[in-house]
Formats: sequence, structure tokens, C-alpha cells
Amino acid sequence: MPVFRKTVEDMEGYIPGEQPRDRRYVKLNTNENPYPPSPQVLEALRDGIGDNLRLYPRPMADELRERAARLYRLAPENVLVGNGSDELLAILMRAVIDPGDAVAYPVPTYSLYDTLVTVHGGVPMHVPFPSDFSMPPELADVAARLVIVCNPNSPSGTLIPPQQLGPLFRRRDRLVVIDEAYVDFADTNCLELLHELPNVVILRTLSKSYSLAGMRIGLALGAVGVIGELAKVKDSYNVNRLSIIAGAAALRDPRWMEGNVRRIRRTREALVRRLVELGFEVPPSQANFVLARRPGEDLEAVFEGLKRRGVLVRYFAIPGLRDALRITVGTDDEVAVLVRVLEQLVS
Amino acid sequence: MPVFRKTVEDMEGYIPGEQPRDRRYVKLNTNENPYPPSPQVLEALRDGIGDNLRLYPRPMADELRERAARLYRLAPENVLVGNGSDELLAILMRAVIDPGDAVAYPVPTYSLYDTLVTVHGGVPMHVPFPSDFSMPPELADVAARLVIVCNPNSPSGTLIPPQQLGPLFRRRDRLVVIDEAYVDFADTNCLELLHELPNVVILRTLSKSYSLAGMRIGLALGAVGVIGELAKVKDSYNVNRLSIIAGAAALRDPRWMEGNVRRIRRTREALVRRLVELGFEVPPSQANFVLARRPGEDLEAVFEGLKRRGVLVRYFAIPGLRDALRITVGTDDEVAVLVRVLEQLVS
Repeated sequence: MPVFRKTVEDMEGYIPGEQPRDRRYVKLNTNENPYPPSPQVLEALRDGIGDNLRLYPRPMADELRERAARLYRLAPENVLVGNGSDELLAILMRAVIDPGDAVAYPVPTYSLYDTLVTVHGGVPMHVPFPSDFSMPPELADVAARLVIVCNPNSPSGTLIPPQQLGPLFRRRDRLVVIDEAYVDFADTNCLELLHELPNVVILRTLSKSYSLAGMRIGLALGAVGVIGELAKVKDSYNVNRLSIIAGAAALRDPRWMEGNVRRIRRTREALVRRLVELGFEVPPSQANFVLARRPGEDLEAVFEGLKRRGVLVRYFAIPGLRDALRITVGTDDEVAVLVRVLEQLVS
Repeated sequence: MPVFRKTVEDMEGYIPGEQPRDRRYVKLNTNENPYPPSPQVLEALRDGIGDNLRLYPRPMADELRERAARLYRLAPENVLVGNGSDELLAILMRAVIDPGDAVAYPVPTYSLYDTLVTVHGGVPMHVPFPSDFSMPPELADVAARLVIVCNPNSPSGTLIPPQQLGPLFRRRDRLVVIDEAYVDFADTNCLELLHELPNVVILRTLSKSYSLAGMRIGLALGAVGVIGELAKVKDSYNVNRLSIIAGAAALRDPRWMEGNVRRIRRTREALVRRLVELGFEVPPSQANFVLARRPGEDLEAVFEGLKRRGVLVRYFAIPGLRDALRITVGTDDEVAVLVRVLEQLVS
């Protein structure tokens, strides 16, 4: 068909982690939370099912927006609710990127950024991480309208401390997005930056720490003027009624999330220890997954071996990451299965 | 802030119909269905609430996609599920429009088209409807990559019969989108075109006839190659788990929808009759709303008067439509209230 944009015809599209249905897997490949959402969420959803699903939702997801503002000590006008933080990333591109504009981010990182930049006619500008995944100094001065830092980063799991991000904000002619999808699993976060800087947007999601990947709820936090511009380019009713209800109920019960995070962090520690014993190098993880590397080896066979034995992890068939597996931190039992199978495969 | 695209800074953003909360209204302004969704939908949703909301949904909303394919006698690969048909419109722009490309549609129509075209860097090409809202002959030959026909059209409610759309498809270097958001309320539809033409996309929504505006479920139907390209530019997990469940359950019970549609069509007839008696001109409606005109008058005061008396309808403060109100067909009781208040205001 000659009608599609060449950019689109030529691209592959983002390939999400596999969700096979042929058998039951120990599923450690898409960073889902192994623990269920808060019972308050399920109860609120049950109450929310009724005849008024015939009515449009509030365009700005008011109930959830207000709840998020309270939790993060912001005004509702500092919050934009999205259909997952993926939608918020797309909204950011749509609002900032004119054709040919550069979007910079340290790599390796979330590969959706490449897809979104390309779709929106922008030019991905990859700034390689140093080998310890610390802040790449060049990032401060690149000529890009939009800079994205996934922090904690996927797939490395590493965190750049907020105070090291400072140089990124010197230039005021660009927007800096801190994608904090995994930050509830970390020791610190960048919320304070919102009070000091006009050109930062922080992205949060309820998919990971709040165990709500199935409901697609993301939050963009930023200055009132920034949020206002982003809101112009969102779909009018981008978040459905039940997601608004689920999100608001989840944020009313942060204790539940914190309890699950504590468990996951404990399991993460134990997992890292075992992986190191098995000869993997593991960058210090502040997320709900770890990157397990064997420098110089290609781990595709290990990935396939795990899969055959019923354990799904993520293997990235791209240069620089073939020596690594990204492993979601599941329950202790799931991690025990993983470790047992891994022992057979790598020893 | 200098970081946003000028296009975005300069635009107003789409303004959805108002959803005031200050009092209870007879709400006839956003074309919602006055009847509830199928009990099977509510039951399926109740069953769907559980711990697996922690998991991502299927990226292509398989269960709903397959159900839609069966209902419309297509293959699943002919169907793309969207977060409302608004998202599908945005996806179409993203997949087809390069900066400066024209997007043509007869006007007056759904004003979101203007917003979306502008956001995506395209150029809206307005082709005025003839006064009877029939097919504008010029539309067949305009130089546009994308042509959109809202059919039945909003806000006129009128339908262009499928056989009159033929000339639109002569040129194969463009995509023709038939936005059938309201088609379940009409006597006919354009589904047959899918079997004959490679360059047509039909949009459906479950917001209106299926009473699920709150769940945001849209469907794009088209050739396999077209749907494949569109899928590349959608967000990976654009439809959440509960919307997939609700949509699939709704499409399993089309009888419920058809029963509501019959009632709404009967009410529509009675409403049109009364409006004509009150001196309004009403184009023949095939939708769940009617356009009530008093040529040459400005109906803003009538709109405001209705609102003060608790009846919300839609007034478009734009040239060519100031003499009109768009009135959603509610229940018989709601319409009776509307008519009673209107009698006081216009006689």
C-alpha cells in the first residue's frame, strides 16, 4: 500500500515481551509484580461496575489526578494521567518533537523510546552509558529538544542519583523526562526536582510497584504550564472509568505497595547473591529486575534452555546485550525455580 | 516554555462536551446511550476482577479482536482494537500523515478531526457538505492522503448511503476512513466495502450503541496489510484487561444492543416530530442524536436556557452551526423534559 508513511512502512514496531499461552511459565520476563494489587483496589472496582459505564469518564481522570497530587504533595494541575506511561511518552513526543528534532537518552535502555521517536518523525540520539551505568557526562550538552533518562534504567536496573542529574537541567530550551517506572523499588527518587525546575517531567506507572499492569495507568508530573501543553495532545478520554477507580484506590493504599516492594527487594538481594555465585556479573539493581551478565558470552542458549524448562526471562538480541539476561524479581519460590534451572544450564 | 512545538502552543486542544457536576442534568449533550450495558458485560467484569490485573493485557486484545471478527464476519487480522475510536483516529494520522499532508473531510463534522490533523502536522482540508448533507462530489478528487467520512455524520445525524461513496475509492493512493461511530442506529452500513476495497478502514465504537463510553473501546476494520501497518504505531498495551473483557462480552450479546437501538430509534422519531412542530428544521437522523435548526437564529440563548432548567444539549459556537442544537436521543422521559422546556423557550 502506498498510503503509509515511509517511516512506518520501514519500521518493525516495538516487540513487547512474549506472553505465551502454550503452557504455564514462571514468568520473569516483563517486570510484572508477583504480588496482587491491594484488596482495596479490587473492592473499589467491584463497586464501580454498574450502569454508569455507559457514560464517558472525566477527561482528566479527576479522582485519580487529585489522589496522585495528594500523595506526591503537588497540585492536581501538576499531574496528567495516561493510559499507561507508554501513552505519556507518546504524548511527550507529540507535544515536543517536530520532524528532525533529536531526542537523546543513555543506552542501552527501554527500546520503546526508539520506536516512539521514529514514529513521531524525530531522530533518536543514543548516548552510551559508561560501563558502570553512571550518568554519561555528554548528555548534559547534547542538542536535543527532549532528553529521557529511565531511572532506574531498564534493562540495567541501575539508578543515577538525583544529585548527579543536575547538569541535565542547565539548558532551559529542552524538556528532561525522568522515567521513574521502577522508582518505588529504589532508595531514592527525583520528585524534589519538580519544586526546583520548570523543565522536568517525571513519569510514574502503577504497572509495577502497584501491581496494576493490566489496568494501564501512568502519571506525568510536572510544572502546571508543561502539564497544560501535554494535555492538549492527549486523547480526550484517554483513561477509562475503571482504571481511574483502580488507580485512585491503589494510591489510597500505598502501604500495600510498600509491603510488596519490601518483599521484592529482599528477594532481589538473595537473587543477586545466587547469580554472582553462579558466575554472573550483576549491576546493582534498584528495580524489580536484575541484569545478569556473562561478559563475552552469548546467552541466547541459556535463555532458550530456561524457556524449555518453563522459565521465561528477557533476552535482547542486540549488540552489547547478548551477554545478558534481564530477570524480573518474582516470588521467592519463582526465583528458586529459576536458580535451580540456571544451575543446570551454566555450570 | 520554548520547548513545545509551535503547533501545540498555538492550539486550543479539543474541548469535549461538558460534564458538569454541580447538579443533576438531563444529559443530552455527549451522545451517550441512556440505557445500561448488557448484564452479561457487568457479570463478565465482575468475574474479571482479580489478582491477574497485575499482568499486562494481551497486546492485540485477542479475545475482543476474535469476537469482533466473528461478529463482522472477518478474520482477526482485519481488526485492530483501540482505546476508544479516538485513539484509532490518532493512530491513523500517525501512520499516514507526513508533515504538510492534507486530510480531507466533509464539514461540519466531528471537530476532533481538526485537532488530530493539526497535532500530527497535517493540513485539514474542509469540503463543505451540500445543504442536504449528501456526498460532496469534490471529495472524490481532492489531493489528500487520508479522507475521513463520519457516517452517520455528527452533528448532522445524516447518512451518506454506501453506494454513493463509491467515487471516493477510485484513487488507490490514499486511505478512506469511514467513521461509523453511530452506524448501529442507522438503516445500513459500509461493512460490505471491506470485501471489495483495499484502501478503506471502518471505525466502530462500543461507546454509543453498546452503552460503554466509560470503557473506551474502539475497533478499526480493514485489510490485513492496513491493519498491520496501523498496529505498528499503537501503544504496545493500548487496551486494558477489563476493557477487553467488557468489549468481548458486549459483542457476545448484540441482541441487548439491538433492543436499546430499537427503543432509541422510536424515541428519535417522536423527538423529531415534536421538534418540527416547534418550528425546527431537522435533517433526517440515522444516529442517536438529532440536529435541531432554526435557520438564521442564534440558539445560544436557547442552549443556555435549557441548561439553567437542567437540560444539557450541545451548542457549537462556530459559524454555520450557531442556528443549531445537537440533541442526544435519551429515554422517552428525558426527551419529554427537553420538549417541555423547549416549548417555553421558543414559543
